[in-house]
Amino acid sequence: MPTLYYSPLSRASRVISQLLMIGKLDQVKVVTVDIIRGDGSGRKDPNNPHPEGKVPFLITDEGETIRESSAIMMYLDEFFGSPLGIKQGEKGRGAFLSWMAYSGGVLEPAMVTHFAEINHPMVKSTFRSMAEVGETLNATLSKQPYLVGDKLTIADMILASAFLWAPNLAPDFEAIKAWLHRVTTAQAGLELEAYEAKALESLAERAG
Amino acid sequence: MPTLYYSPLSRASRVISQLLMIGKLDQVKVVTVDIIRGDGSGRKDPNNPHPEGKVPFLITDEGETIRESSAIMMYLDEFFGSPLGIKQGEKGRGAFLSWMAYSGGVLEPAMVTHFAEINHPMVKSTFRSMAEVGETLNATLSKQPYLVGDKLTIADMILASAFLWAPNLAPDFEAIKAWLHRVTTAQAGLELEAYEAKALESLAERAG
Ligand SMILES: N[C@@H](CCC(=O)N[C@@H](CS)C(=O)NCC(=O)O)C(=O)O
Ligand SMILES: N[C@@H](CCC(=O)N[C@@H](CS)C(=O)NCC(=O)O)C(=O)O
Repeated sequence: MPTLYYSPLSRASRVISQLLMIGKLDQVKVVTVDIIRGDGSGRKDPNNPHPEGKVPFLITDEGETIRESSAIMMYLDEFFGSPLGIKQGEKGRGAFLSWMAYSGGVLEPAMVTHFAEINHPMVKSTFRSMAEVGETLNATLSKQPYLVGDKLTIADMILASAFLWAPNLAPDFEAIKAWLHRVTTAQAGLELEAYEAKALESLAERAG
Repeated sequence: MPTLYYSPLSRASRVISQLLMIGKLDQVKVVTVDIIRGDGSGRKDPNNPHPEGKVPFLITDEGETIRESSAIMMYLDEFFGSPLGIKQGEKGRGAFLSWMAYSGGVLEPAMVTHFAEINHPMVKSTFRSMAEVGETLNATLSKQPYLVGDKLTIADMILASAFLWAPNLAPDFEAIKAWLHRVTTAQAGLELEAYEAKALESLAERAG
Protein backbone atom coordinates (compact mmCIF):
# COMPACT_ATOMS: atom_id res chain seq x y z
CA MET A 1 0.00 0.00 0.00
CA PRO A 2 1.52 3.41 -0.91
CA THR A 3 2.28 5.67 2.07
CA LEU A 4 1.32 9.35 1.86
CA TYR A 5 2.86 11.90 4.21
CA TYR A 6 0.27 14.58 4.77
CA SER A 7 -0.36 17.62 6.93
CA PRO A 8 -3.79 19.21 7.34
CA LEU A 9 -4.58 22.43 5.45
CA SER A 10 -1.55 22.18 3.21
CA ARG A 11 -0.65 21.36 -0.38
CA ALA A 12 -1.13 17.73 0.63
CA SER A 13 -4.85 18.29 1.21
CA ARG A 14 -5.50 18.10 -2.51
CA VAL A 15 -4.12 14.57 -2.57
CA ILE A 16 -6.60 13.57 0.15
CA SER A 17 -9.31 15.24 -1.91
CA GLN A 18 -8.28 13.24 -4.97
CA LEU A 19 -8.37 9.99 -2.98
CA LEU A 20 -11.77 10.80 -1.48
CA MET A 21 -13.05 11.66 -4.95
CA ILE A 22 -12.19 8.20 -6.30
CA GLY A 23 -13.10 6.35 -3.09
CA LYS A 24 -9.57 5.07 -2.49
CA LEU A 25 -8.51 6.80 0.70
CA ASP A 26 -8.64 3.42 2.49
CA GLN A 27 -6.12 2.00 0.01
CA VAL A 28 -3.37 4.46 0.89
CA LYS A 29 -1.65 4.62 4.27
CA VAL A 30 -1.77 8.25 5.37
CA VAL A 31 0.77 9.47 7.92
CA THR A 32 -0.08 12.87 9.40
CA VAL A 33 3.02 14.96 10.07
CA ASP A 34 3.78 18.45 11.25
CA ILE A 35 5.36 21.04 8.92
CA ILE A 36 6.74 24.54 9.28
CA ARG A 37 3.86 26.81 8.25
CA GLY A 38 4.01 30.15 6.45
CA ASP A 39 3.60 31.97 9.79
CA GLY A 40 6.56 30.13 11.29
CA SER A 41 4.48 27.84 13.53
CA GLY A 42 4.88 24.06 13.40
CA ARG A 43 8.14 22.18 13.01
CA LYS A 44 10.10 19.94 10.69
CA ASP A 45 8.67 16.56 11.69
CA PRO A 46 11.25 13.78 12.26
CA ASN A 47 8.59 11.29 11.09
CA ASN A 48 8.51 12.87 7.63
CA PRO A 49 11.03 11.28 5.24
CA HIS A 50 10.81 14.18 2.72
CA PRO A 51 14.40 15.46 2.55
CA GLU A 52 13.22 19.04 3.18
CA GLY A 53 10.42 18.16 5.60
CA LYS A 54 7.70 19.11 3.13
CA VAL A 55 4.36 17.60 2.22
CA PRO A 56 2.99 15.92 0.22
CA PHE A 57 5.45 13.04 -0.05
CA LEU A 58 4.72 9.52 -1.24
CA ILE A 59 6.51 6.19 -0.87
CA THR A 60 5.42 3.54 -3.34
CA ASP A 61 5.15 -0.21 -2.79
CA GLU A 62 8.52 -0.54 -4.55
CA GLY A 63 10.06 1.91 -2.05
CA GLU A 64 10.37 4.71 -4.58
CA THR A 65 9.92 8.20 -3.19
CA ILE A 66 7.83 10.82 -4.98
CA ARG A 67 7.80 14.53 -4.22
CA GLU A 68 5.84 17.37 -5.88
CA SER A 69 2.04 17.34 -5.79
CA SER A 70 1.67 16.95 -9.55
CA ALA A 71 3.86 13.83 -9.67
CA ILE A 72 2.16 12.29 -6.62
CA MET A 73 -1.30 12.92 -8.02
CA MET A 74 -0.33 11.50 -11.42
CA TYR A 75 1.21 8.43 -9.83
CA LEU A 76 -1.82 7.73 -7.64
CA ASP A 77 -4.18 8.31 -10.54
CA GLU A 78 -2.28 5.77 -12.65
CA PHE A 79 -2.07 3.39 -9.69
CA PHE A 80 -5.86 3.36 -9.43
CA GLY A 81 -6.52 3.01 -13.18
CA SER A 82 -6.64 6.69 -14.25
CA PRO A 83 -10.14 7.62 -13.06
CA LEU A 84 -9.22 11.32 -12.94
CA GLY A 85 -6.52 11.42 -15.59
CA ILE A 86 -6.04 10.97 -19.31
CA LYS A 87 -4.23 7.76 -20.24
CA GLN A 88 -1.20 7.67 -22.51
CA GLY A 89 -2.32 7.59 -26.16
CA GLU A 90 -5.79 8.95 -25.42
CA LYS A 91 -7.23 12.21 -26.73
CA GLY A 92 -6.36 14.95 -24.28
CA ARG A 93 -3.11 13.36 -23.10
CA GLY A 94 -1.00 16.23 -24.45
CA ALA A 95 -3.14 18.88 -22.80
CA PHE A 96 -3.21 16.87 -19.58
CA LEU A 97 0.59 16.63 -19.38
CA SER A 98 0.86 20.32 -20.21
CA TRP A 99 -1.46 21.44 -17.41
CA MET A 100 0.13 19.13 -14.84
CA ALA A 101 3.56 20.62 -15.62
CA TYR A 102 2.05 24.12 -15.65
CA SER A 103 0.82 23.71 -12.06
CA GLY A 104 4.28 23.42 -10.52
CA GLY A 105 6.34 25.12 -13.23
CA VAL A 106 4.26 28.23 -13.88
CA LEU A 107 1.30 28.76 -11.55
CA GLU A 108 3.09 28.08 -8.26
CA PRO A 109 6.09 30.34 -9.08
CA ALA A 110 3.75 33.07 -10.40
CA MET A 111 1.69 33.00 -7.21
CA VAL A 112 4.62 32.87 -4.83
CA THR A 113 6.50 35.69 -6.56
CA HIS A 114 3.25 37.70 -6.62
CA PHE A 115 2.80 37.32 -2.86
CA ALA A 116 6.44 38.08 -2.23
CA GLU A 117 6.23 41.10 -4.58
CA ILE A 118 9.26 40.03 -6.56
CA ASN A 119 9.69 42.18 -9.64
CA HIS A 120 13.09 41.05 -10.79
CA PRO A 121 13.12 40.99 -14.63
CA MET A 122 14.69 37.53 -14.84
CA VAL A 123 12.06 36.04 -12.54
CA LYS A 124 9.27 37.83 -14.43
CA SER A 125 10.51 36.70 -17.82
CA THR A 126 10.89 33.08 -16.75
CA PHE A 127 7.59 32.69 -14.92
CA ARG A 128 5.57 35.68 -16.15
CA SER A 129 2.85 36.92 -13.80
CA MET A 130 -0.68 36.26 -12.59
CA ALA A 131 -1.92 38.33 -15.56
CA GLU A 132 -0.62 35.75 -18.06
CA VAL A 133 -1.94 32.95 -15.85
CA GLY A 134 -5.41 34.52 -16.07
CA GLU A 135 -5.22 34.89 -19.86
CA THR A 136 -4.00 31.33 -20.27
CA LEU A 137 -6.70 29.75 -18.12
CA ASN A 138 -9.40 31.93 -19.64
CA ALA A 139 -8.41 31.04 -23.21
CA THR A 140 -9.10 27.37 -22.46
CA LEU A 141 -11.99 27.66 -20.02
CA SER A 142 -14.03 29.98 -22.20
CA LYS A 143 -14.16 27.12 -24.74
CA GLN A 144 -14.79 24.10 -22.50
CA PRO A 145 -15.89 23.25 -18.95
CA TYR A 146 -12.65 21.65 -17.78
CA LEU A 147 -8.98 22.13 -18.63
CA VAL A 148 -8.73 18.99 -20.71
CA GLY A 149 -12.26 19.06 -22.18
CA ASP A 150 -15.53 17.73 -20.81
CA LYS A 151 -14.07 15.61 -18.02
CA LEU A 152 -12.87 16.76 -14.62
CA THR A 153 -9.26 15.66 -14.08
CA ILE A 154 -6.59 16.10 -11.45
CA ALA A 155 -5.33 18.97 -13.61
CA ASP A 156 -8.46 20.88 -12.59
CA MET A 157 -8.09 19.81 -8.97
CA ILE A 158 -4.46 20.86 -8.64
CA LEU A 159 -4.80 24.19 -10.43
CA ALA A 160 -8.09 25.16 -8.80
CA SER A 161 -6.73 24.28 -5.35
CA ALA A 162 -4.30 27.20 -5.58
CA PHE A 163 -7.18 29.67 -6.02
CA LEU A 164 -9.34 28.04 -3.37
CA TRP A 165 -6.43 28.60 -1.01
CA ALA A 166 -5.90 32.22 -2.20
CA PRO A 167 -9.29 33.35 -3.56
CA ASN A 168 -8.13 36.94 -4.01
CA LEU A 169 -5.66 35.72 -6.64
CA ALA A 170 -8.36 34.02 -8.72
CA PRO A 171 -8.24 35.74 -12.11
CA ASP A 172 -11.25 38.00 -12.70
CA PHE A 173 -12.83 36.19 -15.68
CA GLU A 174 -16.35 34.78 -15.71
CA ALA A 175 -15.19 31.51 -17.30
CA ILE A 176 -12.59 30.99 -14.59
CA LYS A 177 -15.04 31.74 -11.79
CA ALA A 178 -17.55 29.31 -13.28
CA TRP A 179 -14.83 26.66 -13.52
CA LEU A 180 -13.76 27.21 -9.90
CA HIS A 181 -17.37 26.82 -8.86
CA ARG A 182 -17.64 23.61 -10.91
CA VAL A 183 -14.48 22.12 -9.42
CA THR A 184 -15.49 23.11 -5.87
CA THR A 185 -18.96 21.65 -6.30
CA ALA A 186 -17.51 18.38 -7.58
CA GLN A 187 -15.51 18.11 -4.35
CA ALA A 188 -18.33 19.16 -2.02
CA GLY A 189 -19.59 16.49 0.36
CA LEU A 190 -16.28 14.64 0.24
CA GLU A 191 -15.79 15.05 4.00
CA LEU A 192 -12.41 16.62 3.45
CA GLU A 193 -13.17 19.20 6.15
CA ALA A 194 -14.00 16.58 8.75
CA TYR A 195 -10.88 14.63 7.79
CA GLU A 196 -8.68 17.69 8.16
CA ALA A 197 -10.25 18.70 11.47
CA LYS A 198 -9.47 15.27 12.88
CA ALA A 199 -5.90 15.39 11.59
CA LEU A 200 -5.41 18.82 13.15
CA GLU A 201 -6.65 17.48 16.47
CA SER A 202 -4.30 14.51 16.40
CA LEU A 203 -1.37 16.82 15.65
CA ALA A 204 -2.33 19.13 18.54
CA GLU A 205 -2.59 16.18 20.93
CA ARG A 206 0.81 14.92 19.93
CA ALA A 207 2.35 18.37 20.41
CA GLY A 208 0.91 18.16 23.90
CA MET B 1 3.37 14.78 -37.45
CA PRO B 2 3.78 16.81 -34.21
CA THR B 3 5.09 20.36 -34.69
CA LEU B 4 7.81 21.65 -32.37
CA TYR B 5 8.51 25.37 -32.02
CA TYR B 6 12.17 25.73 -31.29
CA SER B 7 14.85 28.40 -31.02
CA PRO B 8 18.58 27.65 -31.08
CA LEU B 9 20.52 27.68 -27.80
CA SER B 10 17.43 27.75 -25.65
CA ARG B 11 15.42 25.46 -23.37
CA ALA B 12 14.06 23.94 -26.58
CA SER B 13 17.50 22.58 -27.51
CA ARG B 14 17.06 19.72 -25.07
CA VAL B 15 14.01 18.56 -27.01
CA ILE B 16 16.10 18.44 -30.21
CA SER B 17 18.71 16.52 -28.28
CA GLN B 18 16.08 14.02 -27.12
CA LEU B 19 14.85 13.54 -30.70
CA LEU B 20 18.38 13.10 -32.04
CA MET B 21 19.07 10.61 -29.27
CA ILE B 22 16.19 8.37 -30.36
CA GLY B 23 16.66 9.00 -34.08
CA LYS B 24 13.26 10.62 -34.53
CA LEU B 25 14.08 14.19 -35.48
CA ASP B 26 12.76 13.51 -39.00
CA GLN B 27 9.40 12.51 -37.54
CA VAL B 28 8.72 15.88 -35.94
CA LYS B 29 8.19 19.10 -37.87
CA VAL B 30 10.52 21.67 -36.33
CA VAL B 31 9.73 25.37 -36.79
CA THR B 32 12.60 27.65 -35.83
CA VAL B 33 11.41 30.88 -34.23
CA ASP B 34 12.95 33.91 -32.63
CA ILE B 35 12.55 34.62 -28.90
CA ILE B 36 13.43 37.45 -26.55
CA ARG B 37 16.76 36.43 -24.99
CA GLY B 38 18.03 37.10 -21.49
CA ASP B 39 20.12 40.00 -22.79
CA GLY B 40 17.07 41.64 -24.40
CA SER B 41 18.03 40.74 -27.98
CA GLY B 42 15.62 38.89 -30.28
CA ARG B 43 11.89 39.41 -30.45
CA LYS B 44 8.55 37.77 -29.78
CA ASP B 45 8.09 35.86 -33.04
CA PRO B 46 4.64 36.17 -34.66
CA ASN B 47 5.15 32.65 -36.07
CA ASN B 48 5.29 31.18 -32.57
CA PRO B 49 1.82 30.16 -31.29
CA HIS B 50 2.98 29.92 -27.65
CA PRO B 51 0.75 32.44 -25.84
CA GLU B 52 3.78 34.11 -24.24
CA GLY B 53 6.13 33.69 -27.20
CA LYS B 54 8.26 31.11 -25.44
CA VAL B 55 9.93 27.89 -26.53
CA PRO B 56 9.66 24.96 -26.51
CA PHE B 57 6.04 24.59 -27.63
CA LEU B 58 4.45 21.56 -29.23
CA ILE B 59 1.28 21.02 -31.24
CA THR B 60 0.15 17.40 -31.45
CA ASP B 61 -1.55 15.64 -34.36
CA GLU B 62 -4.85 16.17 -32.51
CA GLY B 63 -4.18 19.91 -32.38
CA GLU B 64 -3.49 19.92 -28.65
CA THR B 65 -0.90 22.43 -27.48
CA ILE B 66 1.77 21.50 -24.97
CA ARG B 67 4.01 23.94 -23.10
CA GLU B 68 6.74 23.29 -20.51
CA SER B 69 9.80 21.27 -21.47
CA SER B 70 9.02 18.41 -19.09
CA ALA B 71 5.51 17.87 -20.53
CA ILE B 72 6.76 18.12 -24.13
CA MET B 73 9.58 15.66 -23.50
CA MET B 74 7.23 13.21 -21.75
CA TYR B 75 4.69 13.48 -24.56
CA LEU B 76 7.26 12.88 -27.28
CA ASP B 77 8.81 10.02 -25.37
CA GLU B 78 5.40 8.34 -25.05
CA PHE B 79 4.63 9.11 -28.71
CA PHE B 80 7.73 7.21 -29.79
CA GLY B 81 7.20 4.22 -27.46
CA SER B 82 9.04 5.40 -24.31
CA PRO B 83 12.65 4.76 -25.39
CA LEU B 84 13.93 7.31 -22.83
CA GLY B 85 11.20 7.09 -20.24
CA ILE B 86 9.70 4.68 -17.74
CA LYS B 87 6.29 3.37 -18.73
CA GLN B 88 3.29 3.48 -16.45
CA GLY B 89 3.27 0.46 -14.14
CA GLU B 90 7.00 -0.23 -14.60
CA LYS B 91 9.62 -0.15 -11.86
CA GLY B 92 10.98 3.38 -11.64
CA ARG B 93 7.77 5.07 -12.75
CA GLY B 94 7.30 6.86 -9.43
CA ALA B 95 10.87 8.16 -9.37
CA PHE B 96 10.59 9.17 -13.04
CA LEU B 97 7.43 11.23 -12.46
CA SER B 98 9.02 12.80 -9.40
CA TRP B 99 12.16 13.95 -11.23
CA MET B 100 10.22 15.26 -14.21
CA ALA B 101 8.08 17.41 -11.88
CA TYR B 102 11.19 18.42 -9.94
CA SER B 103 12.80 19.88 -13.08
CA GLY B 104 10.21 22.63 -13.57
CA GLY B 105 8.84 22.86 -10.04
CA VAL B 106 12.06 22.96 -8.02
CA LEU B 107 15.29 23.14 -10.04
CA GLU B 108 14.23 25.90 -12.44
CA PRO B 109 12.84 28.19 -9.69
CA ALA B 110 15.90 27.50 -7.49
CA MET B 111 18.27 28.42 -10.33
CA VAL B 112 16.39 31.51 -11.44
CA THR B 113 16.01 32.87 -7.92
CA HIS B 114 19.69 32.14 -7.32
CA PHE B 115 20.74 34.15 -10.38
CA ALA B 116 18.35 36.94 -9.49
CA GLU B 117 19.62 36.87 -5.89
CA ILE B 118 16.13 36.67 -4.44
CA ASN B 119 16.24 36.03 -0.72
CA HIS B 120 12.61 36.55 0.18
CA PRO B 121 11.67 34.02 2.91
CA MET B 122 8.47 32.93 1.14
CA VAL B 123 10.32 32.20 -2.09
CA LYS B 124 13.10 30.39 -0.20
CA SER B 125 10.70 28.26 1.79
CA THR B 126 8.68 27.25 -1.25
CA PHE B 127 11.55 26.43 -3.59
CA ARG B 128 14.51 26.13 -1.21
CA SER B 129 17.92 26.81 -2.75
CA MET B 130 20.71 25.33 -4.85
CA ALA B 131 22.14 23.81 -1.65
CA GLU B 132 19.10 21.55 -1.23
CA VAL B 133 19.17 20.78 -4.96
CA GLY B 134 22.76 19.59 -4.59
CA GLU B 135 21.92 17.43 -1.56
CA THR B 136 18.92 15.93 -3.31
CA LEU B 137 20.74 15.02 -6.51
CA ASN B 138 23.74 13.71 -4.61
CA ALA B 139 21.62 11.46 -2.38
CA THR B 140 20.36 9.65 -5.47
CA LEU B 141 23.42 9.81 -7.73
CA SER B 142 25.81 8.50 -5.10
CA LYS B 143 23.77 5.28 -5.17
CA GLN B 144 23.16 4.79 -8.90
CA PRO B 145 24.43 6.06 -12.28
CA TYR B 146 21.21 7.74 -13.43
CA LEU B 147 18.32 9.43 -11.64
CA VAL B 148 15.93 6.54 -12.12
CA GLY B 149 18.46 3.72 -11.84
CA ASP B 150 20.69 2.12 -14.45
CA LYS B 151 19.02 3.61 -17.51
CA LEU B 152 19.46 7.09 -18.94
CA THR B 153 16.07 8.81 -19.20
CA ILE B 154 14.76 12.22 -20.19
CA ALA B 155 14.81 13.02 -16.46
CA ASP B 156 18.62 12.98 -16.69
CA MET B 157 18.59 14.98 -19.91
CA ILE B 158 16.30 17.73 -18.63
CA LEU B 159 17.98 18.14 -15.24
CA ALA B 160 21.53 17.92 -16.56
CA SER B 161 20.76 20.46 -19.31
CA ALA B 162 20.34 23.16 -16.68
CA PHE B 163 23.89 22.61 -15.42
CA LEU B 164 25.37 22.31 -18.88
CA TRP B 165 23.86 25.74 -19.55
CA ALA B 166 25.12 27.14 -16.21
CA PRO B 167 28.16 25.02 -15.26
CA ASN B 168 29.07 27.24 -12.33
CA LEU B 169 25.81 26.22 -10.67
CA ALA B 170 26.57 22.52 -10.90
CA PRO B 171 26.63 21.28 -7.29
CA ASP B 172 30.13 20.43 -6.10
CA PHE B 173 29.74 16.70 -5.48
CA GLU B 174 31.80 13.99 -7.20
CA ALA B 175 28.73 11.87 -7.91
CA ILE B 176 26.98 14.78 -9.60
CA LYS B 177 30.02 15.66 -11.71
CA ALA B 178 30.37 12.04 -12.81
CA TRP B 179 26.68 11.97 -13.72
CA LEU B 180 26.97 15.20 -15.73
CA HIS B 181 29.90 13.70 -17.57
CA ARG B 182 27.90 10.52 -18.27
CA VAL B 183 24.89 12.44 -19.57
CA THR B 184 27.05 14.72 -21.72
CA THR B 185 28.96 11.78 -23.17
CA ALA B 186 25.72 10.02 -24.06
CA GLN B 187 24.71 13.07 -26.09
CA ALA B 188 28.10 13.60 -27.75
CA GLY B 189 28.19 13.05 -31.48
CA LEU B 190 24.50 13.81 -31.84
CA GLU B 191 25.22 16.72 -34.16
CA LEU B 192 23.22 19.03 -31.96
CA GLU B 193 25.85 21.75 -32.39
CA ALA B 194 25.69 21.62 -36.16
CA TYR B 195 21.91 21.65 -36.03
CA GLU B 196 21.88 24.71 -33.79
CA ALA B 197 24.46 26.56 -35.87
CA LYS B 198 22.31 26.10 -38.95
CA ALA B 199 19.19 27.25 -37.12
CA LEU B 200 21.02 30.34 -35.88
CA GLU B 201 22.07 31.13 -39.45
CA SER B 202 18.54 30.81 -40.79
CA LEU B 203 17.28 33.12 -38.06
CA ALA B 204 19.97 35.69 -38.85
CA GLU B 205 19.16 35.57 -42.55
CA ARG B 206 15.50 36.14 -41.87
CA ALA B 207 16.23 39.07 -39.56
CA GLY B 208 18.79 40.53 -41.93
N1 LIG C 1 5.86 22.22 -5.05
C1 LIG C 1 5.62 21.44 -3.87
C2 LIG C 1 5.54 22.35 -2.68
C3 LIG C 1 5.44 21.60 -1.37
C4 LIG C 1 5.38 22.55 -0.17
O1 LIG C 1 6.04 23.61 -0.16
N2 LIG C 1 4.58 22.16 0.84
C5 LIG C 1 4.41 22.96 2.03
C6 LIG C 1 3.02 22.73 2.60
S1 LIG C 1 1.79 23.75 1.88
C7 LIG C 1 5.38 22.49 3.10
O2 LIG C 1 5.52 21.29 3.30
N3 LIG C 1 6.04 23.41 3.79
C8 LIG C 1 6.94 23.09 4.84
C9 LIG C 1 8.34 23.57 4.58
O3 LIG C 1 8.56 24.17 3.49
O4 LIG C 1 9.20 23.37 5.44
C10 LIG C 1 4.36 20.63 -4.05
O5 LIG C 1 3.39 21.14 -4.65
O6 LIG C 1 4.31 19.48 -3.62
N1 LIG D 1 9.53 26.41 -17.92
C1 LIG D 1 9.56 26.63 -19.35
C2 LIG D 1 10.42 27.86 -19.65
C3 LIG D 1 10.39 28.24 -21.07
C4 LIG D 1 11.25 29.49 -21.35
O1 LIG D 1 11.28 30.41 -20.52
N2 LIG D 1 11.93 29.50 -22.51
C5 LIG D 1 12.77 30.62 -22.90
C6 LIG D 1 13.89 30.14 -23.79
S1 LIG D 1 15.26 29.54 -22.86
C7 LIG D 1 11.97 31.60 -23.74
O2 LIG D 1 11.26 31.18 -24.64
N3 LIG D 1 12.09 32.90 -23.47
C8 LIG D 1 11.44 33.91 -24.24
C9 LIG D 1 10.52 34.74 -23.40
O3 LIG D 1 10.39 34.49 -22.19
O4 LIG D 1 9.91 35.67 -23.97
C10 LIG D 1 10.11 25.40 -20.04
O5 LIG D 1 11.03 24.78 -19.50
O6 LIG D 1 9.64 25.04 -21.11
